[in-house]
Amino acid sequence: MTKPFKRILFTGAAGNLGRRLRERLHEFADIVRLSDVADFGPAAPHEEIVLCDLGDRDAVMRMCEGVDAILHFGGISTEEEWAPIMQANILGMVNLYEAVHKLGIRRVVFASTNHTMGMYKTTDLVDATMPPRADGYYGVSKVFGETLSRYYWDRFGVETVCIRIGYCWPEATNYRQLVTWLSLDDLVQLLHRSLTTPRVGHTITFGISDNEGRWWDDRHAAFLRYKPKDSSQQFADKLPAEVQYPPADDIATFYQGGVFLHNGPKYRP
Amino acid sequence: MTKPFKRILFTGAAGNLGRRLRERLHEFADIVRLSDVADFGPAAPHEEIVLCDLGDRDAVMRMCEGVDAILHFGGISTEEEWAPIMQANILGMVNLYEAVHKLGIRRVVFASTNHTMGMYKTTDLVDATMPPRADGYYGVSKVFGETLSRYYWDRFGVETVCIRIGYCWPEATNYRQLVTWLSLDDLVQLLHRSLTTPRVGHTITFGISDNEGRWWDDRHAAFLRYKPKDSSQQFADKLPAEVQYPPADDIATFYQGGVFLHNGPKYRP
Amino acid sequence: MTKPFKRILFTGAAGNLGRRLRERLHEFADIVRLSDVADFGPAAPHEEIVLCDLGDRDAVMRMCEGVDAILHFGGISTEEEWAPIMQANILGMVNLYEAVHKLGIRRVVFASTNHTMGMYKTTDLVDATMPPRADGYYGVSKVFGETLSRYYWDRFGVETVCIRIGYCWPEATNYRQLVTWLSLDDLVQLLHRSLTTPRVGHTITFGISDNEGRWWDDRHAAFLRYKPKDSSQQFADKLPAEVQYPPADDIATFYQGGVFLHNGPKYRP
Amino acid sequence: MTKPFKRILFTGAAGNLGRRLRERLHEFADIVRLSDVADFGPAAPHEEIVLCDLGDRDAVMRMCEGVDAILHFGGISTEEEWAPIMQANILGMVNLYEAVHKLGIRRVVFASTNHTMGMYKTTDLVDATMPPRADGYYGVSKVFGETLSRYYWDRFGVETVCIRIGYCWPEATNYRQLVTWLSLDDLVQLLHRSLTTPRVGHTITFGISDNEGRWWDDRHAAFLRYKPKDSSQQFADKLPAEVQYPPADDIATFYQGGVFLHNGPKYRP
Amino acid sequence: MTKPFKRILFTGAAGNLGRRLRERLHEFADIVRLSDVADFGPAAPHEEIVLCDLGDRDAVMRMCEGVDAILHFGGISTEEEWAPIMQANILGMVNLYEAVHKLGIRRVVFASTNHTMGMYKTTDLVDATMPPRADGYYGVSKVFGETLSRYYWDRFGVETVCIRIGYCWPEATNYRQLVTWLSLDDLVQLLHRSLTTPRVGHTITFGISDNEGRWWDDRHAAFLRYKPKDSSQQFADKLPAEVQYPPADDIATFYQGGVFLHNGPKYRP
Amino acid sequence: MTKPFKRILFTGAAGNLGRRLRERLHEFADIVRLSDVADFGPAAPHEEIVLCDLGDRDAVMRMCEGVDAILHFGGISTEEEWAPIMQANILGMVNLYEAVHKLGIRRVVFASTNHTMGMYKTTDLVDATMPPRADGYYGVSKVFGETLSRYYWDRFGVETVCIRIGYCWPEATNYRQLVTWLSLDDLVQLLHRSLTTPRVGHTITFGISDNEGRWWDDRHAAFLRYKPKDSSQQFADKLPAEVQYPPADDIATFYQGGVFLHNGPKYRP
Repeated sequence: MTKPFKRILFTGAAGNLGRRLRERLHEFADIVRLSDVADFGPAAPHEEIVLCDLGDRDAVMRMCEGVDAILHFGGISTEEEWAPIMQANILGMVNLYEAVHKLGIRRVVFASTNHTMGMYKTTDLVDATMPPRADGYYGVSKVFGETLSRYYWDRFGVETVCIRIGYCWPEATNYRQLVTWLSLDDLVQLLHRSLTTPRVGHTITFGISDNEGRWWDDRHAAFLRYKPKDSSQQFADKLPAEVQYPPADDIATFYQGGVFLHNGPKYRP
Repeated sequence: MTKPFKRILFTGAAGNLGRRLRERLHEFADIVRLSDVADFGPAAPHEEIVLCDLGDRDAVMRMCEGVDAILHFGGISTEEEWAPIMQANILGMVNLYEAVHKLGIRRVVFASTNHTMGMYKTTDLVDATMPPRADGYYGVSKVFGETLSRYYWDRFGVETVCIRIGYCWPEATNYRQLVTWLSLDDLVQLLHRSLTTPRVGHTITFGISDNEGRWWDDRHAAFLRYKPKDSSQQFADKLPAEVQYPPADDIATFYQGGVFLHNGPKYRP
Repeated sequence: MTKPFKRILFTGAAGNLGRRLRERLHEFADIVRLSDVADFGPAAPHEEIVLCDLGDRDAVMRMCEGVDAILHFGGISTEEEWAPIMQANILGMVNLYEAVHKLGIRRVVFASTNHTMGMYKTTDLVDATMPPRADGYYGVSKVFGETLSRYYWDRFGVETVCIRIGYCWPEATNYRQLVTWLSLDDLVQLLHRSLTTPRVGHTITFGISDNEGRWWDDRHAAFLRYKPKDSSQQFADKLPAEVQYPPADDIATFYQGGVFLHNGPKYRP
Repeated sequence: MTKPFKRILFTGAAGNLGRRLRERLHEFADIVRLSDVADFGPAAPHEEIVLCDLGDRDAVMRMCEGVDAILHFGGISTEEEWAPIMQANILGMVNLYEAVHKLGIRRVVFASTNHTMGMYKTTDLVDATMPPRADGYYGVSKVFGETLSRYYWDRFGVETVCIRIGYCWPEATNYRQLVTWLSLDDLVQLLHRSLTTPRVGHTITFGISDNEGRWWDDRHAAFLRYKPKDSSQQFADKLPAEVQYPPADDIATFYQGGVFLHNGPKYRP
Repeated sequence: MTKPFKRILFTGAAGNLGRRLRERLHEFADIVRLSDVADFGPAAPHEEIVLCDLGDRDAVMRMCEGVDAILHFGGISTEEEWAPIMQANILGMVNLYEAVHKLGIRRVVFASTNHTMGMYKTTDLVDATMPPRADGYYGVSKVFGETLSRYYWDRFGVETVCIRIGYCWPEATNYRQLVTWLSLDDLVQLLHRSLTTPRVGHTITFGISDNEGRWWDDRHAAFLRYKPKDSSQQFADKLPAEVQYPPADDIATFYQGGVFLHNGPKYRP
Repeated sequence: MTKPFKRILFTGAAGNLGRRLRERLHEFADIVRLSDVADFGPAAPHEEIVLCDLGDRDAVMRMCEGVDAILHFGGISTEEEWAPIMQANILGMVNLYEAVHKLGIRRVVFASTNHTMGMYKTTDLVDATMPPRADGYYGVSKVFGETLSRYYWDRFGVETVCIRIGYCWPEATNYRQLVTWLSLDDLVQLLHRSLTTPRVGHTITFGISDNEGRWWDDRHAAFLRYKPKDSSQQFADKLPAEVQYPPADDIATFYQGGVFLHNGPKYRP
C-alpha cells in the first residue's frame, strides 16, 4: 500500500506519547526514524533508531538527514528546573530548525502543550490568535518553540503545525481531564492531517477529542480537516456525583493549567 | 444514590417553568426548597416549601438560609407595568444577592431571558460579549439582574450563571419559536451543568435546544459542557408551506423580541 | 401540495447549475419561470421560458414581471475578458435590481461565488464581514453584485441572499475540491432556506456541504437554518495517498482561488 | 443672541455638579428650568424652578412639560443603601422616560458615571462597546439608566447621550484623579455638543479632560466633536515624587473604581 | 530643485478637484501630464495634455505611457444614471489598470469617495476594514474601483492608495460639511504622502482635515504619515446657533451620505 | 529633592542606550546601581557599579539585592549567533526573574524591541494584543523575555513594563527611522512613567516619539500617561526628495524589521 512519505523522523520516541504512538507511525511512511536521548531498545524492520541529544547541534543535523517530514515530540515534557528545559526545549529547538532549514525539510509537526495557555481561567475560551499565558517553565519553553517556528515560516518558508496537546492518557479521571482529554486515535488523525494537508504555513491547533465543553476554540485551524471521533463523555459517569465547590483561591481549578501551577517554577532555594 | 447537593432553593415554583421543572429538581439535591409568593400546594417528601415575597428583605434572608445553591426563577416573567416588575425583579434581586452574600452561598443560576436582547435583528448573531438590547421593561429588569450578579462576582466572588432562556414550551408553532425553542430536558441538562461545573464565575449562556439556525452564539459558555439533545426541527413540517413575506415594517419579525415588542412598555396613560 | 410561492424566476437556466437545478425548482413554486440568453428547449407544464439578454433593460423588466422571488444564476460564471463580464454581470445586475425595485419584488437569491475571496490563503478562515479579495475579473464582477444588492437593501429594502457557491459538481477530485464541495441537494436546501426565511435583509452566506475542514466561517448566516446533509469525505479515499508538497510559489495551492488564478485576467495583448 | 434652545430642563440642580453648572446653563437656552427634590433658593430671571421627587410619576410628568431637551443630573450620586438609590435612580429614571416619551421630547443628556465600569482594572482600556462592570449599587443603578435609555432609543427613537463622568472637581490630588479629571469648562463643552449635534441616537461617551494617560477610549463618540481644552497635567507636579507601590491586594488602586470599592454595597447588617 | 518624480499623470484635470489641484501638481514631478475627456485649454511649460475617453482602451494605454505614477481623479464624480457611470468609472477603471499592469507602472492614487460608505449612520465610526455601504450608483462604482485595484495588488503587485475624499470645497456650511471637510492643502499633503511612501500595498485612507469630531477612523493608514494641518472649526461659528432636531425620518441627517441619498439612484422611469 | 526611589538597578550600563541614559538615571533614585558584564569605568558619587554575567545565577541574585525597581537593558541587543543570545537573553532573563521573585522586588522595566514584530509588514498596524512576529534570533529572545515576565506577573504578581524600543539614536536618516525614531528625552519620560505609575501589571508598550505616521498602536498602554514631546519630523527634510520605489522583493522595506532581516539568523555553516 502506498504511504504518504518515504521516511519520517519521530523525536522523543522513548517518552510517554512516543511509546504509545510508535506502533501507529508506520501508517505515515515506509521508514520511521525514531530518536531519543537514551537507548530504548531495538528497531522493528521498518524502523531506524538514532540516539541523539537535542542539545548537540551536529548530532541533530545527522538525525535529520534524509527525512521528508518531522514529528518533534522530543525534549522535556513536564515542569522542571530551567537548566534541563533550556538544554532540550530551547537549544534543542534551535538546533532542530537550523538543521531543518539547512536540509530543506519542508514540514515539522511540533508537540506543543496546553500549558502554553495555562494561566487563562477555566471559564475562558482561548483561540490561536490570543497571547499565550504559560503556567510554568515548561509552558514558557513551548511558547518559545511556537515563536521560533513562526519565525522560520515567516522568514524561510519552513512549515510547522504546533499541536497544543491536551491530556493524552487512556482515561479521564477528573473534571479538567474531561475537558482536555485527547484519545490516541484522534491524535493519530491530527498528526495525519497535519502532515498531509498541502499547505499549513505556521499553524497552532488544539489537540483534544470531541469532548463536551471546551476551553479552546480551534476554528483558525479548521482547514486541517481534523475531525475527532472520540469523546471523554465515556468517562463522565465515573466522576463523583456530589458537588463540592473548590475553595475560592484554589488555583488548580481557577486556571486552565491545573496542578501544573503547584509545580512551577522549580528552582533551587 | 448520591446527589450533587444536600439542599437547593428553587424560587418561582408556581410559575410556568417552575411547575414543569418541579418533578425534575430532585435530581439535583436531597432536599428541594421551593418558594413562591402565594400558596401552591403541599410539599412532597423531599421538598420544603417557603412562601416569600421577594420584595421583603427579611423573608428573602430566611428563604435562603441553609441552601447550597439557588435556582432563581422567581419574579415577573412577562411584560408588565413597571411597579410590580421593580418590586419583584429589581428589589427582589437585590434582596436575594444581599442574602446570598451574607450567608456565603457560592452559586446562583439566574433565569434571565432572550428579551435582554430582543432589539437585535432576526438577521443578527448575538454573543455574550455584545451589549444587551432589551425589548421592554421585562427585558430591562433582567439586564439589571445580569448587571447586579456580575457585580457580586467581580467584587465578592459569588458565582452566577445567567441563562437567557428561549421559548420553553412544549411545542414550537412559528418561525421565531423554531429558532428559540428550548426543550425541558435540555433545560434540565443546562441547569445541571450550571450547578455542577466546578468554576463558572459570572457566565451568560443562551438556553436553546439544538435547533437548526440560531441567533445566539454560545461559544463563551462552552466550558459548561451543555450539549442539547433535542431540536425544534420536529415541529418544522407543521408550519405552513406557503411563504408570504412579512410587511417591511413588521417589528415582530424584524427584531428578535417578536411580539413582546407590541406589548411594552406598559404604563398607565 | 401547497408550495412556498406561486411563481419564481430562475435566470441562467441553460448554465451548468441551471441544468442540474431545473428538475428541483418545482419544489419552490407552482410556476417556474426559466430564463437564459439563448434558446434551451421547450418548457415543461409548470414552467415558463423567457429568453432575455441581461444587458437589455426593457427585456429584463419584462422577464421580472409577476414573479414572487428571483433566483439569479444568470451571467458569466467563469474567468473571461472584461467586455462580456461587464455586459452580463455588471449591467445585467443593475438592470435586474432596477426592475426588482420598480416592480416591488421583495427578495432575490444571488449566485455569488467563492472567487470573491480567492486571494485569501488556503490557511485563512474567511467570514462574511471580512473584505472581499477577488481573484479575477469574474470574482470582481460578483463583488460588484454583492455591493449593488447591499445598496438596494440599505436604501430600498430589497432583500438579497448572496450565496458564495463552492465547487458544485458531482465529485470532488482534489484537496481544494474536498474543502469547497457543495452537493446539489445541499444547494437546493440552501436555496429553500434563503427563499423561505421570513427576514434575510442582505446576507452573505457560503455554499458548501458538511465537509471535514473549512476555509469559510458561515456563522453570520446561521439564522438561515441551513444544515448540509452531504460531505465530501466520501471522495477523500480516492485521492492519492502519497504526499508531495506543492512548490512554495504554487499560487493555485497558496490561495483559495485555485487554478482560477492562472486564468485571469484575460485581456487582449 | 440666539441660543440653541428655548427651554431646557436641568435636574439635580442642588447637587454638586448642579450648583457648579448652574451659571453656565444660560448658554444653552432662553429659559433654564431647574429642578431638585428640596428647596434650593430663588430663580434668576431666565430660570424656572420646579421642586420634584423623581419617584413621583405625576410630578415628573409636570416637570418635563414644555421643554426642548433635558440634562438629567438628578438622583443619588454616590454609594448608598439600595432603597434611596432605587427610588431616585431606578424609579426616577423610568418616570422620566415615560414622561419624555409621552411628551415627545427628543433628547436627554444623562449624567452616568465612571463607576459603571469601576471593576475594570487600572491597566485596562475600556470603550463603549465593552460590557459594563459596575463597582457598587450606585454604578449598578447608572448601568440601569443606560440600559433603559437604550431601550427608549431602539424602540421609540428617544435620543440619549450617556456621559460617564470622571472626577469633576476643581483639583486632582492623586494618581486616579489625574487620569479621570474633568474640568467644568470641558463638561460644559461636552454638554453643548451632546445637545446640539443633529443626530446622537443612543451614545455612551466618557467625560474626561485632555489628560495624559487614559483608561477610556472614546472613539465611538467621536462624532460628537467634543475636544477637551483642559488637562490634569497642571496638577501633576503637586503629587509626591517618592513612589511607594501600593500593596498587591489594594483594590482601590487595582480597579478603576478606586475608593468606591471600599464603600459598597451599603446595607443594614 | 529635485522633485519626487520625472513624470506623473493626473486624470480628470477639468473636474472640480482637477482645476483646483492643477497649480499644485508641479511639486510632485518635473512633467505633469494632465488628461480629461474634453478640451480644457493649453498646457503650461511643465505640463502635457492628453485628451482621452476612459472608455477607450487604446487611448487609455497611450495616455499612460511613460509615466512614473498616476493620480486617477477622472470619471463621473456625482450621482448619475448608470450608463455614463459604467462607461467612465467601471470600464475606465478596467482600462486604466490593464494599461498600468502592462506598462509596469508601480503606483496609482485613486480618488475614491466617502459615498462608498454613505449608508453608515452619522453616529457610526467607520474604518477601512469594514464592509463598504455605498449610497448610490456613484458610490457603488467607487467601491468597484477599490475592489479592482485590490485585485491588481493581490495578484500583480500594483500599488494603490484609495482616498475616500470628504467634502473638498473652500468652505463648510453645515454640520455634515464640518465633519467631512478637506482643505486643498491637506489633500496635497495626502497625495504627496501617498505617492512618496516607499511601500503602500493597497491602502484605503480617509481624506479629511483635522476637524473636530469624525466619522472615520483612519488608523489603518497611519503608516502614510498624513498629518492634516487645517480644521473645519474655522467655519463652526457661522452655523446657526439655534438647534432644531431634524425629523426622525430625515435620511440626509440619519446616514453619512447626506443629500446624495435623495439623488440616487437615477434611472429612467 | 525627593526622588521616586531610594535605589534602582540599571543593567546593560555599558551598552549604547546604557551609556546615553546613564546621566539621566539620577532623576529616578538616590542611588543608581549600574551593571554590565565587563568593566566600564568608575562610579559617580550617587552610583554603585556591579559587574555581573547575567548567565551566572548567584551573581544575578547579588546584583539585585536591595533595589526597589529594575531597568533591565542588559544582554545582547543585536542579531547574533544563538549561543551568546541564549546565555544573556534567555538564561539571564530567567536568572533575573528568579532573583526578583525571591527578593520580593515589585517591578521591572524590560527593554524589549521592535524586532519582536519585525515580520509584520510596513503597511500593518500592530498593537500589543497581536501575536509577536520576531525577525531573527534577537527578536525571538526578546519575545521569550516578554513571555517569561508575563508568567511572573500572572503567577507571582511581579510587575513588568516591556518597552518595544524603536530606533533610539540621535538622528533618523531614512524612511524606516522616521517612523520608528525615539528620542532620548522621550525614552526617559517613558521609563519614568513605567516606574512610577502605581499599577502596571504586565504591559507591552511601544517606545517611539510623536512621529508623523506610525506602525504601532499603543492604546493598550495609554494608562502609562506617556506623552512624547519630540518628533522625527525634524529629520524629514534631509531625506532625498526623489522617489524610487524599492524592488518588489526587497524584504528590508516590505517588513518592519528592516535590515535586520538580512542579518539573521546567524549560524555557522
